[in-house]
Amino acid sequence: MPRILLNLPPDRIDPWRTALARALAGAGIAAELVTAPQGAIDYVVHAPDGPLQDFAALPGLRAVLNTWAGVEGVVNNPTLKVPLARMVDPGLTEGMVEYVTGHVLRHHLGMDRHIVNPAREWRHEPPPLARERGVGILGLGVLGTACARALAALNFRVTGWSRRPRDLAGIDCRAGAEGLAATLARAEILVLLLPLTPATGNLIDARRLGLLPRGACIINAGRGQLIDDAALLEALDSGQVGHATLDVFRIEPLPPDHPFWSHPRVTVTPHVAAETRPASAAPVIAENIRRDLAGLPLRHLVDREAGY
Amino acid sequence: MPRILLNLPPDRIDPWRTALARALAGAGIAAELVTAPQGAIDYVVHAPDGPLQDFAALPGLRAVLNTWAGVEGVVNNPTLKVPLARMVDPGLTEGMVEYVTGHVLRHHLGMDRHIVNPAREWRHEPPPLARERGVGILGLGVLGTACARALAALNFRVTGWSRRPRDLAGIDCRAGAEGLAATLARAEILVLLLPLTPATGNLIDARRLGLLPRGACIINAGRGQLIDDAALLEALDSGQVGHATLDVFRIEPLPPDHPFWSHPRVTVTPHVAAETRPASAAPVIAENIRRDLAGLPLRHLVDREAGY
Repeated sequence: MPRILLNLPPDRIDPWRTALARALAGAGIAAELVTAPQGAIDYVVHAPDGPLQDFAALPGLRAVLNTWAGVEGVVNNPTLKVPLARMVDPGLTEGMVEYVTGHVLRHHLGMDRHIVNPAREWRHEPPPLARERGVGILGLGVLGTACARALAALNFRVTGWSRRPRDLAGIDCRAGAEGLAATLARAEILVLLLPLTPATGNLIDARRLGLLPRGACIINAGRGQLIDDAALLEALDSGQVGHATLDVFRIEPLPPDHPFWSHPRVTVTPHVAAETRPASAAPVIAENIRRDLAGLPLRHLVDREAGY
Repeated sequence: MPRILLNLPPDRIDPWRTALARALAGAGIAAELVTAPQGAIDYVVHAPDGPLQDFAALPGLRAVLNTWAGVEGVVNNPTLKVPLARMVDPGLTEGMVEYVTGHVLRHHLGMDRHIVNPAREWRHEPPPLARERGVGILGLGVLGTACARALAALNFRVTGWSRRPRDLAGIDCRAGAEGLAATLARAEILVLLLPLTPATGNLIDARRLGLLPRGACIINAGRGQLIDDAALLEALDSGQVGHATLDVFRIEPLPPDHPFWSHPRVTVTPHVAAETRPASAAPVIAENIRRDLAGLPLRHLVDREAGY
């Protein structure tokens, strides 16, 4: 009977144990769920902030199944010698689509000036239609593609940029350095959904912020390190960037003295855009264990050279 | 050559004249556009706040083509003896879908506590998924149906209520008094998109507000008169209604001393949800003129007994 280690912070163990037991039973897999590395461990259900970081201590390990979409906290672990799968949770994708669509519409409609309006100004200035609004999405993985499709369904003029060329109906897909410049130039609202890799750290620097249309809004739901924070603050102060809605940060929770908190044109959301929900994520892990036991390749396998 | 009177407030004449001239030319119709009732007038392109209110002064009139979706300011005009068409503007529908979807997502995601957060609270409380969120839509005309479909596409559990029974894929459609109670009971977020008729004035009164789940949010993008204002303020004070986002009011602009402005759980938007845009609306009017000249019935004809 395979033994599965739940390598998660203590407060997340119970919901995962419940959801995983149900999902494994549903997949017809008899397995033992443990929370400490006792005896031979076949699979690690992993959070990058879980207590175990030394996979070498688990000699019979077959695979590591990440509970997060982001793998930057595990992909470079030198003790990891077995396949690593990312989390692609339908609930997480849905939550991300809701967050991104909501905040794109918020900026598109100019909601903030109605939500905070102490002067009681009645300014009848209807926004343009979405069909007249350019939105750029950096990153066309599972999350970026789902967001691009949802925004295109609302008629936004969506340009999507990805490392590898993609072809998506209704989306102007770009790739490469030239494609990035073109995507930024069209992005009145820019959505960051790239993974954090050596190629994407500080990608959004002063020069690239300067390629956006003046007054553009930025929504970062990827990773904090994608943006050069100091360059963003300067672009906000100069008016080059009109607003930044940030869900991810270099340090989380965002320290109380960080200038993002006090900047009038920054909205801080507490890393709520993409939440892995055990109820929808556990079946994804159970299915991967079923596949591995049946000799099939894992789904959502991480390309460790690319870093995601 | 038919003569068309633009019965609009002065500040809206120029954009309409330009758009209508283009649309008529595109429909192959030679017509004369006038801004004052000189000579025989065949058609009135009408705004309820336009200067001419006495249609009896236009003896040869064939039809009145409203530039607004709402017709309550013209349908009961006793001098109106010719067919009246509502405006069904694809741009207006798109704008309404964007407004409603944006504000539903805003309330669903609990954005306001991030947009206004002077205490710099980092509260990691991800919202439920849309598939777990009940949204009620009152009114399943062109606008309500388009909004219901957009919200269902984002996985919201949408219940729609209309006077006449409807059948829409993915929407739980209800009608009648019992259907209204069931719709309200499921509506964590309630969207009002009913026309104003004798049957809908003050429909949302204290009793019906009491049928909503406690803490529900209301979005009124229909007409101000659909809600009993005093009952809404009481329900907001008691916590029965968590928030009201109102785009329409009994008096517009909303007077500066109205309690909606100062209520901490009311958002006032300045009647921007559904804007008729001449560029997209003029072709609808040109097509109706083409149909009438060809002996075909008008589209979007108002049922004057029902009031819409």
